Order: sequence, then C-alpha cells, then structure tokens
Amino acid sequence: MGKALIVQKFGGSSVANVERIQNVARRVTGYRKKGYDLVVVVSALGDTTDELIELADKINPEPSEREMDMLLSTGEQISVALLAMAIHKLGYEAISFTGLQVGIITDTSHTRARIVKIDTKKISDELKKGKIVIVAGFQGTTPDQHITTLGRGGSDLTAVALAKELKADQCEIYTDVEGIYSTDPRIEPKAGKIDAITYDEMLEMASLGAQVMQARSIEVAKKFDVPIHVRSSLSEKPGTMIVREVKRMEEVVVNAITLNKNESKITVCDVPDKPGVAAKIFKNLASGGVNVDMIVQNVSHTRKTDISFTIQKAELAKTMRLVRKAAAKVGAGEVVEDADIARVSIVGVGMKSHSGVAATMFETLARKKINIEMISTSDISISCIIKKNKVESAVRALHGKFGLNK
Amino acid sequence: MGKALIVQKFGGSSVANVERIQNVARRVTGYRKKGYDLVVVVSALGDTTDELIELADKINPEPSEREMDMLLSTGEQISVALLAMAIHKLGYEAISFTGLQVGIITDTSHTRARIVKIDTKKISDELKKGKIVIVAGFQGTTPDQHITTLGRGGSDLTAVALAKELKADQCEIYTDVEGIYSTDPRIEPKAGKIDAITYDEMLEMASLGAQVMQARSIEVAKKFDVPIHVRSSLSEKPGTMIVREVKRMEEVVVNAITLNKNESKITVCDVPDKPGVAAKIFKNLASGGVNVDMIVQNVSHTRKTDISFTIQKAELAKTMRLVRKAAAKVGAGEVVEDADIARVSIVGVGMKSHSGVAATMFETLARKKINIEMISTSDISISCIIKKNKVESAVRALHGKFGLNK
Repeated sequence: MGKALIVQKFGGSSVANVERIQNVARRVTGYRKKGYDLVVVVSALGDTTDELIELADKINPEPSEREMDMLLSTGEQISVALLAMAIHKLGYEAISFTGLQVGIITDTSHTRARIVKIDTKKISDELKKGKIVIVAGFQGTTPDQHITTLGRGGSDLTAVALAKELKADQCEIYTDVEGIYSTDPRIEPKAGKIDAITYDEMLEMASLGAQVMQARSIEVAKKFDVPIHVRSSLSEKPGTMIVREVKRMEEVVVNAITLNKNESKITVCDVPDKPGVAAKIFKNLASGGVNVDMIVQNVSHTRKTDISFTIQKAELAKTMRLVRKAAAKVGAGEVVEDADIARVSIVGVGMKSHSGVAATMFETLARKKINIEMISTSDISISCIIKKNKVESAVRALHGKFGLNK
Repeated sequence: MGKALIVQKFGGSSVANVERIQNVARRVTGYRKKGYDLVVVVSALGDTTDELIELADKINPEPSEREMDMLLSTGEQISVALLAMAIHKLGYEAISFTGLQVGIITDTSHTRARIVKIDTKKISDELKKGKIVIVAGFQGTTPDQHITTLGRGGSDLTAVALAKELKADQCEIYTDVEGIYSTDPRIEPKAGKIDAITYDEMLEMASLGAQVMQARSIEVAKKFDVPIHVRSSLSEKPGTMIVREVKRMEEVVVNAITLNKNESKITVCDVPDKPGVAAKIFKNLASGGVNVDMIVQNVSHTRKTDISFTIQKAELAKTMRLVRKAAAKVGAGEVVEDADIARVSIVGVGMKSHSGVAATMFETLARKKINIEMISTSDISISCIIKKNKVESAVRALHGKFGLNK
C-alpha cells in the first residue's frame, strides 16, 4: 500500500473527450508516482446521460425508473473502462468497477437511491495489489442486484461515501473551476477563491443555487467528517477545502454571495386567515410533486392575507394549475405569477455571532434603489427576492460591502 | 406460466433505431398475447459496438481485454433497457437483465469467454410473475463478477444456452433475411430458402463463410439438441429450422453452395521435402496468431515441394512477413501471395452416402472453363479455390447442376 489514500472524483466535463480522459489519466498517475494509493470516481462522458435520456424519451415518455437506471448507468461504465485503458497506456496498473461490482449497496428507490452500505473488500484487495481503482460514480445496486442510480450529481456522493468507508486521507472533487468562489466571477471579477469553508456554509450555498457540489454529498461529508478538496482538473493550484470548522485569522461575517435566477414567485391573494388554509394549499403542491422553496405570509390586519412563495421556474405552469385549483377550494382570491425575479443571498457562519448583518444587507440594496420583495433567513444566510434585472448590481454591491473584493 | 416458453434473439440490425426497437416490442408482445412465456435476448444497437471499439482504439490501441469487456458490454445493456421501455409502452410487463445480473457464469477468458453455467432462478422467478424477461446478449460474468463477453456473434450463444438451460420449446434467431438460403440470392436469384438443415451442415456453412449464425452457438445447439428457428424480424413467414436430422422426402445430396471472397492464398515454393519442415512454417504462423484455413501440399517427385495455404485477407501482410522469415530459415524458395482468389463450396450431409459428387463439381467448373487452384474436402463439403472473378459464375453453375434452382 502507498503512503496515503486519496479518493479523486472527476465530473463529466473532465472526461468529455479523448484528450480530457488522457489528461485525467496523467493527473491520476502523477499522484501514483508520488506514492499515493488512489481510488478514482468518474461520471459519464460529457453529455452521455442527457443523450440517453433523450433516446429513452422517444421510446417511452414515462419510462420505468428501474429501466432508466439500467440505461443511464452505462454512461459511467463507459467512462471507467476508458479511463482504465488510458492509465494502462501510461504504464500503470488500474482496474475499473461498476457500482454493482464494487458493492455500493443502496435502497430500492430507483433514480434517487440512498447508499445503505459499501463493501470495501474488493477495492482494498486491488489497492493492495498496487492497482489504481476506478469506480463508476452515480450508481449502486440493491441487495438483489438491481442497478440503481443516486440522482443528479450522485458521483460526488459516491466519492464522499467511498472516502468515508475507506478512511481516505483526502477526498478531491475535480471540476472545471479552481474551487469555491466568494461569488460568480462572471458577475464580479473581484470575486476570490475561498481557501476554506465549512460544511454548513457549503450546504447553504448549494441549497441557494451554487452548483459546485451535490448537497447530499456535503451532508454525508459533514456527518462523517470527510474533508473535501474542491479543485480544478486543469491546474495544480490548491482549491477550496470544505471542513467542519474554519479557523480564520480575522473573523469573517459573510463568506459568499450567491444568486439564483431559476426561481419564480407565485402570490395567492386574499387567502382567508384561518388555521389550516395554508396547509391545504401547500399539501396540494406537495402531492403534485412541486418543491416549494421560500414562503412568506404577510402579517394580516384583516381576515384575509397574501401568501407568496417561490418554486423552480421549470415547474411554474404545473404549479399555477395546482395553486389555482387549491385557491378556489379554500376561497382565496387571485393567483399571480412572477417569473421576473431572482434571489440574492449572503452566506457565512460568522453571522451567528454578529448582529446587524441583515440591516447592512437591506441598506446596501436600498442604496442601489433595489426593492426587496421577499426576505428569508437561516442561521447562516439571508436571502432576498428582488427583480431579476437588478441581481448583478445587487451581487456586486454586497460583495464590496461585506469586504469580499480581492 | 404461459403455455410454452420461447427464447427469441434479435441482432443489432433488428434494434438499430427507435422504430426497429418498437417493431421488436410489437413482435414480442404479439407472442405474449398468444400466451407464450418469453425470454428475449438482444444485441447492441446497430453499430454501437464498432463505435465503442473505435473510441477505445483512440485511447489505447492495445486495450486490456478485461476493460474492453467492461466497455463493450454497455452496448447490450442499453438495448435491453430500451426494449423493456418499449414493451412497457405497449402495456406489457417486462424486466431487463445484464449477463452478470442474470447469472451467465463464464470462464475468465475476456473477449472470448466460454459459458460455464447459467443460474436460471432469476429468469424463472420473473417468468412466474408474468413478465417478459429481456437478457443482454454477448455477455456474462466470471464467478468473481468481472464482466466478460462471448466473442463476435455471442448473442446467438446466449440465446441457445438460455434455451437449453430453461428447456425452452423454441429458440428463434431473428435476422434481416428470411432464413438460410441455398446460396446468396444476390448472386443466384433462383436460390431458395431452405426449410430445414442439420446442425452439421449449418456448422460447415458457417465455417465456409455463411454469416447467418455464430458457429459456437450451433455447436452448443447440436450438443444439447436445441432446435433453432432462423427467421426474419420483418415477416411472419417460417424461416429455416436447424435440427439434428432432416427427414427429406427425396434424398438431397447438396443442400447449399457457399462462397467466400475474404481469403488470400500464399504459396511457399521449393520447400525441402523433409519431415518437420512444414511444421516449422505453420508453428511460426500459429505463434504469430495467424489462423490458417486450407492447406495443400503437392505430391513431390523431387526433393522439393510447394506448399499453398489460405488465410483471412486482413492478415495477408502480417502473414507474408512471418512466412518469409520462416521460409528463409528452412531453406525454402520464393513466397508468392495471391489475393485474387475466392472459395466456392458445396455442402450437404447426403454426400456421405453418394459417390461421384466431387467429380460432378470439378466437371461443372471445367465446363465453365474455371481453373481449380486448390481443393479441400470434409465429410459433408467440398471446397475449391478459384480465381475471384469466376466465383459468381461458379456458384450459379453448381446451384443449377445440383438441382437447387427454384
């Protein structure tokens, strides 16, 4: 066995074509040369998954989830075989496994399965033989050997779970950016790479729309204290460490500004202000499969109130149908949609111990003449819904105000 | 359980696109509607396998056979999932399995594995639930769960082996032709579909270049007496039955005329006529991985002789290098290649009990002024090597002479 074990995960864009697969092989073998044991988790090549979904859709627009998993899991199987071949070409030993072969046992919830346990014997045996072990991300198997998948971004989860079970010294998530940024650098060029961030902050950012890592994988990393290193597959520079606690020289209140333009707002007007009415509306949405995000109900001085909430834009039409029905049933008034909104959020564990952060945020937006339509807070974040065309200027103003410009 | 069990195998061209997959689904469910239990074996979609081989070649021109099997087995996995979805769309129950999942246990010879045993419990259980069971052809697994493949045409073998283990009432091999023909209808329009043919004749035809079914699968069918029905996936007409013995009203001497234009001839001149010399030449070729087909050595009146043999045309350059080296070592003379040849053969179990068949063949060719360069015979076939540009006229003359014109 080598001096230490690293789990490395490469996403679909890192293995999108022959050159990139060769690049990953060079990086992996570079670590092997330094003496590390390596378990490499790979996603499907580039757009393979989307292409397979499209093909299935032509044959059956409502495909069985079990068969969908059969179909989609081929994507990663192709990647791991090709990466093994690329590593062999460089003169190193490697062996690839599917989730089923390696023993990633999940429950039976096809297309969104949860990992139940991982049998690490096969991996350990191959590591002992000096091989680089390549594991198909995103997939597992039920105890009865039906293939399952872990949901979008599931390869992150495979990597974190393997790092935990194998007691890896490091878990590296490779992407096409250099790490986690204080905000989107395309909007604020003064955004800086964050050297270290806590699981909680990262979870908050993921739920607020940052698309670097799958939220479930961060939850697992937090639960089992697996330190994660998010970094670029095209550079040797260190990226961002995601850990339990970050000891910073100077206390930082706000660590990152996130934005999300994929939500829409719906307002149900004149809802009778009686117990159980809101419950009825949202129960209707839940059984229709709609994920509701922020919910705001105005304090009512009359017997009627307005309830606003946000949802994923892609679900707007479906949600409007469901809400109109529910509104009629409970005797509410008009239902108004607004797709022209965006969410801007500030995130930082430092907020817990600092007062006045919300006030500073509201003031900063007010100074830019940006109207706040909804507010929602958590322990470590504050979000505001504003008009979509104001979101870039809001991000820049907040990024400067909270001292994140580099 | 239904009234009888049919194993149906559909090749890559039968599932090459969405429409054809839907066509297969309609055919399969048509049989289900009639009350049959069904196990369906499917190959990879159209050119998938070739595309994956090409991709692998770009990454590593000498890929590990284990990883090649990992890669190629995804092709059938995609097919079975899509066919299951297409069958679901028609309102029938179906479930797909990979070779590994279903328990097709093979030896560890990757890319050309032999089936050791098949665990039929999983299939039987699903059949009992009333499901159509779809199995990925061409693939299996070692006892340690490493994925293997059975070699080109291996899906035929999967179907025959499953039919045997499941004691199926029928094993149907679907192709894009109506069955086995007395010769290639593109050359002789009077060629007729053969209603029934023996395993031995079919094996002989496969080894002589007929490309309808994989030879190994016919061997297995013969060994376990599995009757095979080769038929068209686009028509309801009966095709050709392959069985142990065909009781024909009238004894037929020759059943089919085959031709093969993919061979080349090599002649080693002036080989010293001593024991062990020929052995040295062919041992050299064998260790170089060259498959030699026909071998003819002329009777020698001097101390020197000429040895001619045929090989696959694709191996001509490589073989010439090996032969020239070997010829020099044993003190032989010139080595001459001839890619301009073809083989024409007559096949029929009736030959065993009839004399004069060879004479009739040679006479027929002579009458057409076709020179015979090499002759080779077996129990149930006679082959002649002739000039390539004469092969069509040879086929037509023999087809007529042996009473096969319809």
